[in-house]
Amino acid sequence: MSTLPYGIFSTRTSPPRAGLKHGDVVIDLSGMERAGWFSDVKGFAGEPFSQSTLNAYMELGRPVWKEVRHIVVESLHSNPRVLHPFFAPLADCILHHPARIGDYTDFYSSYHHAFRVGSMFRGPENALNPNWTKLPVGYHGRSSSIRLSGTDVRRPKGQTPEFGATKKLDFELEMGFYIGPSSTLGTPIPIDQAEDHIFGLTLLNDWSARDIQAFEYQPLGPFTAKNFQTSISPWIVPLEALEPFRCTLPPQKEKPAEYLAEPASASFDISLEVWVNGQCVTQTNFNTLYWSMAQQLAHHTISGCDVRAGDVMGSGTISGEEPGSEGCLLEKNNGFLNDGDVVELRAYSEKRGLRVDFGPVSGRILPALI
Amino acid sequence: MSTLPYGIFSTRTSPPRAGLKHGDVVIDLSGMERAGWFSDVKGFAGEPFSQSTLNAYMELGRPVWKEVRHIVVESLHSNPRVLHPFFAPLADCILHHPARIGDYTDFYSSYHHAFRVGSMFRGPENALNPNWTKLPVGYHGRSSSIRLSGTDVRRPKGQTPEFGATKKLDFELEMGFYIGPSSTLGTPIPIDQAEDHIFGLTLLNDWSARDIQAFEYQPLGPFTAKNFQTSISPWIVPLEALEPFRCTLPPQKEKPAEYLAEPASASFDISLEVWVNGQCVTQTNFNTLYWSMAQQLAHHTISGCDVRAGDVMGSGTISGEEPGSEGCLLEKNNGFLNDGDVVELRAYSEKRGLRVDFGPVSGRILPALI
Repeated sequence: MSTLPYGIFSTRTSPPRAGLKHGDVVIDLSGMERAGWFSDVKGFAGEPFSQSTLNAYMELGRPVWKEVRHIVVESLHSNPRVLHPFFAPLADCILHHPARIGDYTDFYSSYHHAFRVGSMFRGPENALNPNWTKLPVGYHGRSSSIRLSGTDVRRPKGQTPEFGATKKLDFELEMGFYIGPSSTLGTPIPIDQAEDHIFGLTLLNDWSARDIQAFEYQPLGPFTAKNFQTSISPWIVPLEALEPFRCTLPPQKEKPAEYLAEPASASFDISLEVWVNGQCVTQTNFNTLYWSMAQQLAHHTISGCDVRAGDVMGSGTISGEEPGSEGCLLEKNNGFLNDGDVVELRAYSEKRGLRVDFGPVSGRILPALI
Repeated sequence: MSTLPYGIFSTRTSPPRAGLKHGDVVIDLSGMERAGWFSDVKGFAGEPFSQSTLNAYMELGRPVWKEVRHIVVESLHSNPRVLHPFFAPLADCILHHPARIGDYTDFYSSYHHAFRVGSMFRGPENALNPNWTKLPVGYHGRSSSIRLSGTDVRRPKGQTPEFGATKKLDFELEMGFYIGPSSTLGTPIPIDQAEDHIFGLTLLNDWSARDIQAFEYQPLGPFTAKNFQTSISPWIVPLEALEPFRCTLPPQKEKPAEYLAEPASASFDISLEVWVNGQCVTQTNFNTLYWSMAQQLAHHTISGCDVRAGDVMGSGTISGEEPGSEGCLLEKNNGFLNDGDVVELRAYSEKRGLRVDFGPVSGRILPALI
């Protein structure tokens, strides 16, 4: 079974619409929709696959997503030829943003990342603030500057406090999840329902300018040091595809508040890599994250904050404990990105012949504007 | 001349469309558009007033906005009866969000607010971080939970670190501006062009839970303490209406970097008030802000971050120096909001018979969910 990630594609002769990547073809979901393939799916309403984003489909919820995937997977297994009329060669497709992202939130959920960076700033004794083990620390990011993999990255300028181009341009290896369906203002999402609001995952690079960040981040957090660009995959891997790779979280250092108490296995075994100029510089795993996506979402909404289908929530930099598993250059303490460097994130899950593939998510550094 | 703020309205029998408030009527701009009133305006394209948000109109730019306003103002002066066919009684109108807000940013640009709050946390010697006088500190807020004036506010829950309903619910008296037209990723907006990207202003209340904020804000800034709701006016006051009230910024304590150097008068004389349960508790003025809107926008984009028509940028709490001019209860050090309290922000500019009116922006506190 292939990953079958969702995306939005067009061709030279047809407008943007929804599809599933299947090897080197895209399965045209809008064509299947028009041909009535989903008309018996309970809750399937409107023409969600014939729109230029997946937002409407993300509102429909897990029972619909499961049934749609089931229909496609069964057909591919039993008689793939019936789907051939809906195949478009991937090489002929133009890929678009899979969703209209309303808000982008970024967490800070990797213990090893937070501890290593905190130690650099405040020493190992005070590496973690008292809140870190009690709640998934996060902040609001900038959605306007999210771009698809392959988009170049212009080196940003800022104050460090001297004004100029950043000398400490960094990548951040992250996974993000897309919200669906929306929730209601004033009503927190209970932790045991949080995954019902997670449509799927994307690989994500939250580019950062460390010297600008160091000068600006007190007391309101990172701002221009991160808002210049965030790169994501054009493909969204549905949670369904990851079920075979579900695993437990690492043990938490203290029992969290009731609203964050995980009912079950809440993490996933996903191998993560960073390649710079064709060389692998980092290997780690999503399963090292301290806080789960469900905990992140329960915390995000405990205040009553609403979330909307298409919103993206990043994990924060994912770093393992060992040397070579650092999710950003800051932790490696061995220099930063140069103009012309190409950074590529990769992610996959693999087990007994089953393979789920994300990304890649890549970007090339352009020199600062004069 | 009246303020003529822009909004989106519908009636029981007609869909959302653009209008201008004029006393107790709304001037139906979509009707004027269909009747050809704007067909000679250079750059007026599509049917921006017949849409359910002002985003498309915000893309058109200042020359169009000026000319449209000129046409309406001239008609109201010379022969208002020609506009009567486009009048809808305000009492019959349902008001909607004036724009689809992509991203919401909040600054921290009041010196007296930053100094007073900083003194409470770190003493007067260290009240301001070294970055404060060098750049307009800001952070990304949450756009999903922005609601129109009159929407009740549910008391949020969170960790302080004890889990429960906030005991320190506060208002924040702010002004916000709407972006238009959009800018380009990778290209900063020069300060002398920044106002060309400011469509108009709104009054804004950035509700805050101070005990939750104090525990969560290190190191990435406020998150659930502010994301539960932000209240705005349904009306946007165009920059054109405020020209008679333009004034200079207070003297800046040090010369900012070149990209923040203001070319001219960059502030506005706008009286601001907070009323709690019918009693005025705060009086101050927009002209006390240290950083201008143009400086905020130039800084926001210096990294290359793009902005989109409809984005909102808040000033941060606006406080004067004197007792009675504090823009939030935290600074008054005299208790916080109770369930049932009604907070109303008011704003106006007045001079020689000319009056520009914002708001009001109000909200009533509902008890926390059990």
